[in-house]
Amino acid sequence: MKRREFLKATGLGAAAAGAIAAPAIAQSMPAIKWRMPCSWPKSLDTLYGAAEVMAKSVAEATDNKFQIQVFAAGEIVPGLAIVDAVQNGTVEIGHTASYYYFGKDPTFGFGTSVPFGPNARLNQGWWTQGGGEAALNEFYKKYNTRGLLAGQTGCQMGGWYRKEIKSLDDLKGLKMRIGGWAGKILQQLGGVPQQIAAGDIYPALEKGTIDAAEWVGPYDDEKLGFYKVAPHYYSPGWWEGGSMLLAFVNLDKWNALPKSYQAVLEQAGHYANTWCMAKYDHLNPQALRRLLGAGAKLHVFSPQIMEAAYKATMELHAGVAKDNASFKKVNDSMMDFTKNAYQWFQLAEYSYDNYMIRALRG
Amino acid sequence: MKRREFLKATGLGAAAAGAIAAPAIAQSMPAIKWRMPCSWPKSLDTLYGAAEVMAKSVAEATDNKFQIQVFAAGEIVPGLAIVDAVQNGTVEIGHTASYYYFGKDPTFGFGTSVPFGPNARLNQGWWTQGGGEAALNEFYKKYNTRGLLAGQTGCQMGGWYRKEIKSLDDLKGLKMRIGGWAGKILQQLGGVPQQIAAGDIYPALEKGTIDAAEWVGPYDDEKLGFYKVAPHYYSPGWWEGGSMLLAFVNLDKWNALPKSYQAVLEQAGHYANTWCMAKYDHLNPQALRRLLGAGAKLHVFSPQIMEAAYKATMELHAGVAKDNASFKKVNDSMMDFTKNAYQWFQLAEYSYDNYMIRALRG
Repeated sequence: MKRREFLKATGLGAAAAGAIAAPAIAQSMPAIKWRMPCSWPKSLDTLYGAAEVMAKSVAEATDNKFQIQVFAAGEIVPGLAIVDAVQNGTVEIGHTASYYYFGKDPTFGFGTSVPFGPNARLNQGWWTQGGGEAALNEFYKKYNTRGLLAGQTGCQMGGWYRKEIKSLDDLKGLKMRIGGWAGKILQQLGGVPQQIAAGDIYPALEKGTIDAAEWVGPYDDEKLGFYKVAPHYYSPGWWEGGSMLLAFVNLDKWNALPKSYQAVLEQAGHYANTWCMAKYDHLNPQALRRLLGAGAKLHVFSPQIMEAAYKATMELHAGVAKDNASFKKVNDSMMDFTKNAYQWFQLAEYSYDNYMIRALRG
Repeated sequence: MKRREFLKATGLGAAAAGAIAAPAIAQSMPAIKWRMPCSWPKSLDTLYGAAEVMAKSVAEATDNKFQIQVFAAGEIVPGLAIVDAVQNGTVEIGHTASYYYFGKDPTFGFGTSVPFGPNARLNQGWWTQGGGEAALNEFYKKYNTRGLLAGQTGCQMGGWYRKEIKSLDDLKGLKMRIGGWAGKILQQLGGVPQQIAAGDIYPALEKGTIDAAEWVGPYDDEKLGFYKVAPHYYSPGWWEGGSMLLAFVNLDKWNALPKSYQAVLEQAGHYANTWCMAKYDHLNPQALRRLLGAGAKLHVFSPQIMEAAYKATMELHAGVAKDNASFKKVNDSMMDFTKNAYQWFQLAEYSYDNYMIRALRG
């Protein structure tokens, strides 16, 4: 009996057809293992947690076929070199803040937040419906990467100060640990921005080598202990009105994924985004109470300081936009959406919050 | 040659092993078709759109193995009988607002929003991190359903009025089309709540059979044309500070799903939630400008009215909580989270919004 005839006789032809079909099914869910370094130490369990939640969501949605191993900053890639490692294919994906890479091009700033940009909800609105995702991914293509929304901190605090900041004069000569792009604004207001790694900020504040430092918000800040040596805690962090975290994927690796895995990755990132914001809203109030109990003194930046910072930001951005088409395109898109959206947000949303804040204080 | 030997000789044994393995792979991604009726007509493309986005996301993440067909209100199930149809297994899943079913038990209200509850972001925070999802799904179990987060409208508007509402006296005898639970508060303030289907509201307002009507916000309200006959548009909708939409799944169908499909469904729902909020934030400002251009007059409810409504709500909820353990449990959980979260939200978030709203007006 010839093979073909045997198959026909025994009905194994059908099984063989099954065997041929099997790889087609398997191909739609191939076993894939990726590595995802982060910019965060494990101790920042909101930020690092968002990366873990994203990886876990991908595994759950694919029956563990698509596995992403998460690494803390420095384990396999330095915390501030995530985009580089993704771009050159050292790793497939990385979880970071886009604005750490503004030195390559200031357009990277919009992937996290820029001073006086949208708040958390509107940032997410811009990304999802306002053209933000498309505008930024057109830009990220130059770096052979694709950005996926994968976390959100909400509006951050304006930092810890050894002395009160009552007027613009108090900013003159102020040495402050502050993120790169915001540092440029501080500089225009007479301050002296400092780049200091997390672990070195506390001793510098204690010794008076620096006068102030900003980090994130109550829950993350509490761990670094700044309230003990620089008790004046200002809000709002006008340079981070709603900071997104992104997972950058190597574009070749992205394009090689089955469409279903691309969809799973994007949805898992969105879930991590929601989870991260919720985590902060759950933990920040508790940390804030502890900080106040430990002697932190709350202040709000004066209108004079806010206005000077706003003016300096608009001037800086207009200047950069002149020579950088990518920056101009993304900035116009983000600020158009933001201006538009706040016209609605100020109405029901803001008046509701206004009432609730007063009612629940009682 | 015997079959076993033939297989061995030709190497088809391996292929057969593949054929045996195939069903195991296929089983983790079985072909499933579900039907999802909604409470929304297709014309409400934000709400109906959220259901469509959820279904599309599920299909994409499963390589079209898990398909959910979306139906508008009334196509296969009446718009306000979604939970019933899911509970009795007529359909596997349905997209609706939980508070439509408060007649069964007022605890259903918390699955959408209750007066003076959390705003959109904090509602999502409560659901995800504050125990909301667990508390509500313990309750929904009684109805053989599981609720998945699947949409969000943001804070709604406070409705359209033929005459200005300056004081509590103006609410006395006011006939208003308003959702069920909020209607109870209006009633305590002297108003006369009316239940009228969407299509009948406009003629009732025009004829003066009713004095006022609330719906959602600018984008949805515009379609119904209320501004032409009741031009006074009030904010905020204190009875809907941030309304969630849920997809209810029949609990037996849920439990029979592979774990991976459960994860896909939940993540798709979260994506629909983000999408829906973003859609509103994109479309509402444009609609608001058109409404203002067409003669709508914006007002904010007076502090006197807000305070009376707040007091009436707290009294009503305390009364219901006495006799309804589910209501008490979910209400305590939601309000603890809300009170806590607003203590943080008022700080950076609110002061940032406050500045941005003024700056962008200029």
